[in-house]
Amino acid sequence: MDLAEIAQRLELETLYTDYAACLDSDALESWPEFFTEDCRYRVISAENYEAGLPLGLIYATSQNMLRDRVSALRDANIYEPQRYRHLISGIRIEPPSLPPPPAGEGGVRAGGRDGRGPDVLEVTANFLVVRTMQDGAMCLFAAGRYVDRVARTATGWKFAKKDVVLDSRQIDTLLAIPL
Amino acid sequence: MDLAEIAQRLELETLYTDYAACLDSDALESWPEFFTEDCRYRVISAENYEAGLPLGLIYATSQNMLRDRVSALRDANIYEPQRYRHLISGIRIEPPSLPPPPAGEGGVRAGGRDGRGPDVLEVTANFLVVRTMQDGAMCLFAAGRYVDRVARTATGWKFAKKDVVLDSRQIDTLLAIPL
Amino acid sequence: MDLAEIAQRLELETLYTDYAACLDSDALESWPEFFTEDCRYRVISAENYEAGLPLGLIYATSQNMLRDRVSALRDANIYEPQRYRHLISGIRIEPPSLPPPPAGEGGVRAGGRDGRGPDVLEVTANFLVVRTMQDGAMCLFAAGRYVDRVARTATGWKFAKKDVVLDSRQIDTLLAIPL
Repeated sequence: MDLAEIAQRLELETLYTDYAACLDSDALESWPEFFTEDCRYRVISAENYEAGLPLGLIYATSQNMLRDRVSALRDANIYEPQRYRHLISGIRIEPPSLPPPPAGEGGVRAGGRDGRGPDVLEVTANFLVVRTMQDGAMCLFAAGRYVDRVARTATGWKFAKKDVVLDSRQIDTLLAIPL
Repeated sequence: MDLAEIAQRLELETLYTDYAACLDSDALESWPEFFTEDCRYRVISAENYEAGLPLGLIYATSQNMLRDRVSALRDANIYEPQRYRHLISGIRIEPPSLPPPPAGEGGVRAGGRDGRGPDVLEVTANFLVVRTMQDGAMCLFAAGRYVDRVARTATGWKFAKKDVVLDSRQIDTLLAIPL
Repeated sequence: MDLAEIAQRLELETLYTDYAACLDSDALESWPEFFTEDCRYRVISAENYEAGLPLGLIYATSQNMLRDRVSALRDANIYEPQRYRHLISGIRIEPPSLPPPPAGEGGVRAGGRDGRGPDVLEVTANFLVVRTMQDGAMCLFAAGRYVDRVARTATGWKFAKKDVVLDSRQIDTLLAIPL
């Protein structure tokens, strides 16, 4: 493991840490900035994910759709004084599942040309989200796995694809917030 | 990201790991040693923290006050066979929020003079504490965020300031133990 | 902290991440491969662990015993659509608790001869396992601490010893699955 590889791993940890901090601080307007313009974002049950079903309970195919989603959430805002806390662990770089994209597509530079290692990575991580209500009641809100593709862009690592794979298949109450 | 920066991040991870291990193993007598002599330690609800209220539900302004607190806890000891388990993730170095302290103050050396990077850092992290009772019942005990200032001292990184910002505002049962 | 030390820490993080991913994806047939051939694996309550009791609620003294255990689990398989999610944090290299083993024993090479640092390490980590039932009900399933010995082998770091020390002493329901 050389210095470039170590630095890459810590950069990815920073990406997930910043992502969690954004959501936990309710800074939802900044949330789409963690994604590439032509990203795909899904929230899907593990059952459907494993069955290969394409659509999720939340499905967006661009950064703009994520922005629209945040606007809708703000418009529909009902004051619910809960707080969310993400615990993310087990960040893992997976073997590539697809050929690298052509240079320049979606703002993603082609990989490996400058000795920094690939510019597109498949990454997974475990997550747990705990919800705390204003009266102090706490509950396990969601657990599962991120199955992501991250891309190195001119402004740092971004999610080109994020599949939020929930251990549960019953996620009605999850529809309100990004995960 | 160079080697010094990487080493610093891993040193900070070790600090939080050791801190959690100290609390989880009930080695409370060692807990004050994680702090500088003129430290500030608070446990505060997120609500009060965001409102800028200065005082917390627990408030100490020196390492000696932390020692007194541990003594009081031991004197008041009622045998309660619960165990606590800290999960800490998302350790993040934040932009500086204040000018560096004068050289020598509080045992903290002035930053950046020897090429090792700054000697005072603002650091945040997410935490979750799970409590297990002797009969096996487990519960979510506390979740929230550490908002800390760490200082490099002659004996390693210490907490110059630690704000334990709880997602809940109801923390009566938290008063017994350090977090 | 030099590059070799940093690389070692990240290698250990990868070991625990891969271990958790194996269990969470129910790839139990691969689970024994995380251990050396002459490994010791125990699941034990913290109470018994601290009392120095040798036997655990689950006890295996070789990789083959772990394989047998997986076979038994598969044979006894009752369809229970729960999912487990491991959160592991606070991975920590502990001071050595025993002299290094003789060269060649158990497939473990003697330490430190090639400048890569020791080949046997004592490592601890905190874990939390969350269980999600098919109807979406989530619960805290287990929390505790791994007290492990890892060995560098020709095929990477393996667990030469793993003590799964549970915060609870009531673990009847834990007997079904590896932790």
